Amino acid sequence: MSQDKKPALKSRTEPDPLFKSRWISLPQRVQELPVATLPKGFRAGGVAAGIKPSGKLDLGIVVSDEEGTTSAAIFTSSATPAPPVQLCRSPRVRLSGLRAVIVNSGNANAGTGGRGRDNAVHMQGVGAMVTQVDHEQVAVASTGVIGKHLETDLIASGASTLRGQLANKNALEFAKAITTTDQWPKLATLEIQLSDGPVILSAQAKGAGMIAPLHRPHATLLAFVETDAKIESSLVSQMLDRAVNDSFDRVSVDGQLSTNDSVFLLASGASGVEIDAESLDHQLFQRALDVLLTGLALSIVKDGEGSKRIGRVHVKGGIYDECEKVARTVADSPLVKTALNGGDPNWGRILQAVGMALAKKDVQDDTEVVDRSVDIWIEGICVAKNSANALFDESAIEQLQKAVAREEVEYEIRLDGEGSEATVYFSDLGHPYVTLNAEYTT
Amino acid sequence: MSQDKKPALKSRTEPDPLFKSRWISLPQRVQELPVATLPKGFRAGGVAAGIKPSGKLDLGIVVSDEEGTTSAAIFTSSATPAPPVQLCRSPRVRLSGLRAVIVNSGNANAGTGGRGRDNAVHMQGVGAMVTQVDHEQVAVASTGVIGKHLETDLIASGASTLRGQLANKNALEFAKAITTTDQWPKLATLEIQLSDGPVILSAQAKGAGMIAPLHRPHATLLAFVETDAKIESSLVSQMLDRAVNDSFDRVSVDGQLSTNDSVFLLASGASGVEIDAESLDHQLFQRALDVLLTGLALSIVKDGEGSKRIGRVHVKGGIYDECEKVARTVADSPLVKTALNGGDPNWGRILQAVGMALAKKDVQDDTEVVDRSVDIWIEGICVAKNSANALFDESAIEQLQKAVAREEVEYEIRLDGEGSEATVYFSDLGHPYVTLNAEYTT
Repeated sequence: MSQDKKPALKSRTEPDPLFKSRWISLPQRVQELPVATLPKGFRAGGVAAGIKPSGKLDLGIVVSDEEGTTSAAIFTSSATPAPPVQLCRSPRVRLSGLRAVIVNSGNANAGTGGRGRDNAVHMQGVGAMVTQVDHEQVAVASTGVIGKHLETDLIASGASTLRGQLANKNALEFAKAITTTDQWPKLATLEIQLSDGPVILSAQAKGAGMIAPLHRPHATLLAFVETDAKIESSLVSQMLDRAVNDSFDRVSVDGQLSTNDSVFLLASGASGVEIDAESLDHQLFQRALDVLLTGLALSIVKDGEGSKRIGRVHVKGGIYDECEKVARTVADSPLVKTALNGGDPNWGRILQAVGMALAKKDVQDDTEVVDRSVDIWIEGICVAKNSANALFDESAIEQLQKAVAREEVEYEIRLDGEGSEATVYFSDLGHPYVTLNAEYTT
Repeated sequence: MSQDKKPALKSRTEPDPLFKSRWISLPQRVQELPVATLPKGFRAGGVAAGIKPSGKLDLGIVVSDEEGTTSAAIFTSSATPAPPVQLCRSPRVRLSGLRAVIVNSGNANAGTGGRGRDNAVHMQGVGAMVTQVDHEQVAVASTGVIGKHLETDLIASGASTLRGQLANKNALEFAKAITTTDQWPKLATLEIQLSDGPVILSAQAKGAGMIAPLHRPHATLLAFVETDAKIESSLVSQMLDRAVNDSFDRVSVDGQLSTNDSVFLLASGASGVEIDAESLDHQLFQRALDVLLTGLALSIVKDGEGSKRIGRVHVKGGIYDECEKVARTVADSPLVKTALNGGDPNWGRILQAVGMALAKKDVQDDTEVVDRSVDIWIEGICVAKNSANALFDESAIEQLQKAVAREEVEYEIRLDGEGSEATVYFSDLGHPYVTLNAEYTT
């Protein structure tokens, strides 16, 4: 797709078109449906419960009405996870058979200790009551300010109101209710033509700051994925793992791992169309899921606290771990991010970041240091060859200046050897990030 | 010392008083001399060679006139070091017997390949000619823009001018000539009363952006240290290693490792006072060296591209590697840095950073995740106990607000266990950093 297609952001409540990026494309037999549509068997909604001082939507519920719903979830690998995450990992929640998730924004219920855990259990109970399912089938998620106790009375009264508003076409209200510093809600719905008929796959996510994946578990944000396909829970888990690995685990906003990251996938089975492991349907569904979550991940990067441009760094070389580390180090570098923001084709900072990523620790003797050969391309233009400036042609410099002023900028880095590669998408670093984070208590 | 003593920065050319911080104090029998004074046997100076477009000082030389001068050096661990660093590590430079260093600012001679190496050799030759010492005894250092070829004709003509200006009281000109985005020159001179008489120890450094130590070799910046004590080169090396480990390796501005970091220590022996290994003199000299380099390191942090406040994070626990990783992760976190800038006692972001530092990678199963207990103090006020909010007293909150609005803010973090600790000093993240790095090509 054209790299010039800039999705027009009409207002802060308008969702971002997810599949306009040149870096993703919908597979054949997959098409978009209206974003607010949920798969069969699901209802959702959002209300303003009064947790956010702004009075905006801040409490959401998604529920499957099908008893045989299967599910899977992935959480943050933080060593100080928030009580809602601790609760979800406890025996009080059956992660393979979830039917509902209750989620609030405005308060992360993190750094809240035993009382925070009690409040998370209370919130789970409210969710169970409102959705009429067993508490073990209700997961809880929170996002917002850290260290403040959750006002569970607000959750309870908000949820009571929400009860009558849960509907199959109500995903947009749900998506709005989970946002914090997000500029726009992030959601999409796909229809997939499988061999036995169509199934629907939808997802809603929130992102903005504090986004950095840290390998398994890859949790990086709040994301809720629903489908009406019928899928065994072990396959749900396997597909979610892979999709998160290729999407949310591939983005960097500020390199910070959150205490609350959670991703859920629920399969209601209400379409009556079953997906068997290792079938062609499985492959197609997986591809659609990958694209859907990658679309959401890119929207999160684009919305990364004041981001103006997004970058994609693709690293090729002989050793996978090196490719991975170089991609992440470049994507996390504040120097590369500020250059991206400034529309500056500053390959020197990329070379510096590569040198840092591949630096040998604990070198006892300088003779052990090996100078690495690195080639760098920006938007297809070779800027460095063998770790040295390769950009001398005036017209290429001009072309490069134009290319880095666009909405999406592509970096390719080649290390020694062949056969491995790694990609990370990243936001830039501009004044709005500083304003937001110096003046906003998260 | 009082935490309210704010060093008055009179002008951009006035050096910063280095020993006003409450975090350092000069040992007994050590006193400051005028900053521009070099130890006996040394001459230095700086000129405007025309490398910086601004016309400011950009070429410096420091030379020892003593034939028996001993020395040591530490360089960046980057896998893509700049040609001057490559040259210094090559057999063309005798690092244990250096007598001179020639250094330019305005151009890093990095990312310049074979021609960059030739230019570094040329610059070494110019240094040797001007100082009249063998080329093996001349080290080269460069800092500034990456990827641009060095104009060696400017280096040569500048050095010719500089030749007549090298003087024992000329360290300030040298210190100015090595700066890039630094707001003020960084240098100090100490006199140490050893058992056989006084020796002088001086140092000049430059820092600002792209400062992050990465274990051994700890190089983090350009720093030049001179003494007229007589010291065997193996002891020079040992003392420099330890001092850098406790100073330059303990600071974080933007977590970025540079391609050019180099630290040199030259001992002329001209005082006639010898320091023997394992003597009391050795201990005292080491302490003075530690304090001198820590003072310079703090000045660099304070000058960290637009920094308003500096933080000190001190971590205690049972496992050294954990203390170390937590200290560095907190110090590098853009969320903690923006909160420091905003005068926001945001312990939630510290808890989040600790959780990230201790996150388990490659967890196969959520049951492997152990929630860690973390206590956090800010300026002596306990803000989190057992990973949960501990700050409820209104007067403590008020006191904390005042404390974090000061120039220096102290964070203490306690993990499980006892016996290990690690400290890192860090700058905040404010708008000037973004302005400088989005609009300035380094």
